[in-house]
Amino acid sequence: MPTAPPTLHVHPDRLLPPEPHLRDIARRLYDAVRHLPIISPHGHVDAAVLADDLPFDDPASLLVSPDHYVTRLLHAQGVPLSELGVGAGRLDEQQARRAWRHLCTHWAAFRGTAARYWLECQLHEIFGVTTRPSAETADDIYDIVAARLAEDTFRPRALFGQFGIEVLATTDDPCADLGAHATLEADPQWGGRVIPTFRPDRHLEPARPGWGQAVTELGEAAGIDTGDYAGYLAALEARRAHFIEHGATSSDHSHLDVRAESLGTREAARLYAAALAGTATPAEATAFRRHMTMEMARMSVEDGLVMTLHPAVRRNHHAPTSARFGSDTGHDIPVRAEFTRALQPLLERYGTHPNLQLVLFTTDESVYSRELAPLAGFYPSVFVGAPWWFLDAPEAIHRFRSAVTETAGFTRTSGFIDDTRAFCSIPVRHDMSRRLDSGWLARLVADHRLAEDEALETITELVSVNPRRAFRL
Amino acid sequence: MPTAPPTLHVHPDRLLPPEPHLRDIARRLYDAVRHLPIISPHGHVDAAVLADDLPFDDPASLLVSPDHYVTRLLHAQGVPLSELGVGAGRLDEQQARRAWRHLCTHWAAFRGTAARYWLECQLHEIFGVTTRPSAETADDIYDIVAARLAEDTFRPRALFGQFGIEVLATTDDPCADLGAHATLEADPQWGGRVIPTFRPDRHLEPARPGWGQAVTELGEAAGIDTGDYAGYLAALEARRAHFIEHGATSSDHSHLDVRAESLGTREAARLYAAALAGTATPAEATAFRRHMTMEMARMSVEDGLVMTLHPAVRRNHHAPTSARFGSDTGHDIPVRAEFTRALQPLLERYGTHPNLQLVLFTTDESVYSRELAPLAGFYPSVFVGAPWWFLDAPEAIHRFRSAVTETAGFTRTSGFIDDTRAFCSIPVRHDMSRRLDSGWLARLVADHRLAEDEALETITELVSVNPRRAFRL
Amino acid sequence: MPTAPPTLHVHPDRLLPPEPHLRDIARRLYDAVRHLPIISPHGHVDAAVLADDLPFDDPASLLVSPDHYVTRLLHAQGVPLSELGVGAGRLDEQQARRAWRHLCTHWAAFRGTAARYWLECQLHEIFGVTTRPSAETADDIYDIVAARLAEDTFRPRALFGQFGIEVLATTDDPCADLGAHATLEADPQWGGRVIPTFRPDRHLEPARPGWGQAVTELGEAAGIDTGDYAGYLAALEARRAHFIEHGATSSDHSHLDVRAESLGTREAARLYAAALAGTATPAEATAFRRHMTMEMARMSVEDGLVMTLHPAVRRNHHAPTSARFGSDTGHDIPVRAEFTRALQPLLERYGTHPNLQLVLFTTDESVYSRELAPLAGFYPSVFVGAPWWFLDAPEAIHRFRSAVTETAGFTRTSGFIDDTRAFCSIPVRHDMSRRLDSGWLARLVADHRLAEDEALETITELVSVNPRRAFRL
Repeated sequence: MPTAPPTLHVHPDRLLPPEPHLRDIARRLYDAVRHLPIISPHGHVDAAVLADDLPFDDPASLLVSPDHYVTRLLHAQGVPLSELGVGAGRLDEQQARRAWRHLCTHWAAFRGTAARYWLECQLHEIFGVTTRPSAETADDIYDIVAARLAEDTFRPRALFGQFGIEVLATTDDPCADLGAHATLEADPQWGGRVIPTFRPDRHLEPARPGWGQAVTELGEAAGIDTGDYAGYLAALEARRAHFIEHGATSSDHSHLDVRAESLGTREAARLYAAALAGTATPAEATAFRRHMTMEMARMSVEDGLVMTLHPAVRRNHHAPTSARFGSDTGHDIPVRAEFTRALQPLLERYGTHPNLQLVLFTTDESVYSRELAPLAGFYPSVFVGAPWWFLDAPEAIHRFRSAVTETAGFTRTSGFIDDTRAFCSIPVRHDMSRRLDSGWLARLVADHRLAEDEALETITELVSVNPRRAFRL
Repeated sequence: MPTAPPTLHVHPDRLLPPEPHLRDIARRLYDAVRHLPIISPHGHVDAAVLADDLPFDDPASLLVSPDHYVTRLLHAQGVPLSELGVGAGRLDEQQARRAWRHLCTHWAAFRGTAARYWLECQLHEIFGVTTRPSAETADDIYDIVAARLAEDTFRPRALFGQFGIEVLATTDDPCADLGAHATLEADPQWGGRVIPTFRPDRHLEPARPGWGQAVTELGEAAGIDTGDYAGYLAALEARRAHFIEHGATSSDHSHLDVRAESLGTREAARLYAAALAGTATPAEATAFRRHMTMEMARMSVEDGLVMTLHPAVRRNHHAPTSARFGSDTGHDIPVRAEFTRALQPLLERYGTHPNLQLVLFTTDESVYSRELAPLAGFYPSVFVGAPWWFLDAPEAIHRFRSAVTETAGFTRTSGFIDDTRAFCSIPVRHDMSRRLDSGWLARLVADHRLAEDEALETITELVSVNPRRAFRL
Repeated sequence: MPTAPPTLHVHPDRLLPPEPHLRDIARRLYDAVRHLPIISPHGHVDAAVLADDLPFDDPASLLVSPDHYVTRLLHAQGVPLSELGVGAGRLDEQQARRAWRHLCTHWAAFRGTAARYWLECQLHEIFGVTTRPSAETADDIYDIVAARLAEDTFRPRALFGQFGIEVLATTDDPCADLGAHATLEADPQWGGRVIPTFRPDRHLEPARPGWGQAVTELGEAAGIDTGDYAGYLAALEARRAHFIEHGATSSDHSHLDVRAESLGTREAARLYAAALAGTATPAEATAFRRHMTMEMARMSVEDGLVMTLHPAVRRNHHAPTSARFGSDTGHDIPVRAEFTRALQPLLERYGTHPNLQLVLFTTDESVYSRELAPLAGFYPSVFVGAPWWFLDAPEAIHRFRSAVTETAGFTRTSGFIDDTRAFCSIPVRHDMSRRLDSGWLARLVADHRLAEDEALETITELVSVNPRRAFRL
């Protein structure tokens, strides 16, 4: 008689502090917010998924292939990305099952990771899986999830409602027509709020391959000739306006550094022309990009888009992998970040302007207490973004609160941001954040730094007020 | 019937570990040191406050306007510094009440911050406030504090005694006549010890506006012509001697970096002349400042003043605010620090000299385990300074002990330093430190890294021995 | 009647979490691994100690003089290294007792340090000492330890067996004949596995004094003329082969940075010739060293030696001490480390090659979450090394697991490495690691991130599988 496989267990008190007294407090705080609507002000879900509302293809395409948190760790175990359906488009059932089996076979490699926590919660709470993934259980679990995905209640719009999402921001190229957003807006059956985010990186970096083409496309999208610098600025402004018309409240920027330094119009125009002509030096390309960070701040002051910065990641570290599988395939690796000096010119110019809001994210924890909290603890325009990417995980979130709160308090932080491509992980990630912040606040109550009514108000604000304030929702 | 406002509650076990077993140990350790005299070897209280012994003006001038920990966070909430009495000199009652109301109205913004903890303890323990600050309670609390400040027992000297301060160091310009210190020394009614600290930064940085004027003033104060380099050195030495006569035991240095590099007398004299003539380049000005860091070490070896270093803060980050409100107004922002390479020439020359003592402070936590603990764990001259500025807070203090102790132990740390301008926060800050170190030591006892008698001896030494040793008191 | 001196107490539950529920879980995990064999894949014990199997000389020579963790902190207390027998060769009894007395007299200075924990466990568990070291007890404890060292059961081979060591790696110069390793291999009485590690630093850095002599010696050892670059490469390859024949599975590299950048054969040969001629500039010397890091990776791909990197320590910070006492005398001080950019060329070339294995160590904690975990979480060739040197201590090990696990899991870490010169500390260090990882895993179980059976499998793998995998044992 074969032994039953181990169960998949998701404990109701998971991530709350284990000490009984702290857990009691944390539970009371968590209970107050667990069912509050989800505000997701920054992420990478495709609006077309909701506009089209087609059933998801299969378990692997939903939970494995597009999620670089998952595929990267499988790759580190020696599984080629090609086995996981990365960059492969729609998978046939054999491919999907194979990718799924790799995940289940290597389930133990995820122990202790954030990805494991998210997957486990999704499998159990959304899909009702009750056995632990393994080589033996892979096919059964695949069948369970696949069966669910065929049900109407597992179509994207149904899940959006079931997840309790109130606002969902997507991330979009300035040239995007935002048709899916318009479709949703126009649909009387649809009550959700799905808004775009203006992400112009590829149009702002002359050093990046394809920049010339990008500004041509920008001009076409805006109906403005980007052949000179004035037209380029006008086209960017026009596309920002287009985004704002479709509900955008923020622009997002992810360059190698956050340095903002104005060149003056004349020099900027000269470098723009040189870049178009292909004669700009690398230093000039960088100078132009830093000039444009300042211009983006200037536009934000004028049109009110919140400006979010996600710097200091070396993209596509392993060129052979990018060449074969494309970007966002798990080998973007952080480098040291610096904000104090880099943002000084921008903050000197706009830092106390009431129209500016900057949300600063980092994958370099050393800046939390050294730079981000001090900046957000003085400038009314600066917010510390929620822990990002590699730091969006239980231990790292505790370190974030520990490093930021004592200088900047809670009000100067952005509230949770899921930043995900994995649609079904949205409720799980927000729930994780609520649990961890409840646990964090419970400690402040337990050692008498905060009264419990204050902690209760704080956890509620972190969920419902902070993201609205930071993102002007 | 109106509801009673929430009470202001200060728990006797605050900041001690919440787990019952650890709390018991921590309480025993804390009880052994809670009433020991306060040694404050570095801070920014004005000696004249004690020499004159006038009543404090009003609650806002005492607790809000001069405290950049408080005003910076209110500024981040959108309150202009002008509303808080910053840089305004003496406030009239309307101004003082307005500043106070801003604090109380934004009380929730301070949750989880060190400033909140200090304010709460001061309001409750020193002034007897029992209701939580809010827009509604602001005026009542103002009245309570104002009434106390009118009492004789709340005059500076009375509080000095009540706080149990044994030694208080001030921070003073080399040109200061130290008259207030002399007044106190000469007063037979006065039993306290108030000593100056030699802080020559503005005289050592040719790149700083006003340096020429500063060295002229230095010459006048010393009665020595600072028109050439030899006179400049002699004047500095003379003023150090003047400070030592008035009880100084340390000099303090806060430059952008701690690099110490001797130029040799001839080149130093050349750069000094160029700086006076206004022809020194920025690189030469920096080289001269680094040369002077080495000279300060040389003088310390000769006259025995302990040398404390507080580097790597970008001062006056927001120029419009400094222009209007002056320095120390909440927008000094840390940058990365580096000690290993920067101090190598100094330590190679003087690091094992019995007369040198260096106390190294940082706002960049990444150097704790990487550089400061290894340096203090080898050089008998080096001490790791207590957590400074943004890091002088409960979580940060735990991170400090965690990062430093395993390499450098307890004896190589400086003991607590309050570094404050806020006179009434002195006892509260020292008490906070005693509670946190008790909690830290309780953990070492609870997991059997230390016997309780050793922890008891250690907490007592941290309070009574370490600061005396590090500052030669 | 004199009081009895305090006892030396080593609690069976030391380092396990103090909370009762967590301690119960941790105890179950620890019990499963406490008696498993020790795998020590990187360290600095001399193989001759085991080959010769002579009794250890005296307590100070065994536990004080050669251990820079101990002597550095005594030096910081003002004890000259000459008093501790550093660099003094064999000590006479008077010298040995004097060194020992310094340790005991300054016992309190070690409170809270890793060195204190290791010494305490060794004294109690290996030598049966039951009184706490102090000035008063120094001679008695010396006598107890000295008496034990005279017993046959305290000879090196007997201890090796008693400690349960299965594999012990030494660290050796490429010119080493590995005679002691050969003796042990050839001895039918000897069942242990003692393998060398190829550590070629001094042969790869033209800027280091003595490099020219080093490559001459290399040529002599290999029987290959190192007068030109081709011979130099061939000699290195030959010596690697020699090490592999004697059981080596890894090479070790400790330069100031890990930058790997190929110059091409022609340019490398030119720089090699210039370096031999003494005409290479410092920049060329550095470029050559970085080229050789890439060459070492190339050789690893070819011969399968695991490549371990220990970068970013400023060696011999205090030149007067090195001049008098030699290297490794306690004043090697870390500097900032950088891996993402520095290793990009190497990983682009070899990062997915199945023959390459890189184990990355750091004394700069800021790279754990920012660089090391992301790299090891993608590249199948990269492992995160166990906490190294100043970070090999209870608090630091918790910070390591906290920073690394959520991105890279457990499988991408190297398993524990003692890296020690102090033979008797080997079992104590491995035991410490097992306790701490048990405690860490207990927390994951207690807040429901991991089932207990998973934690049990993980702790077992960390002890028995990870080091074998990372070091190809």
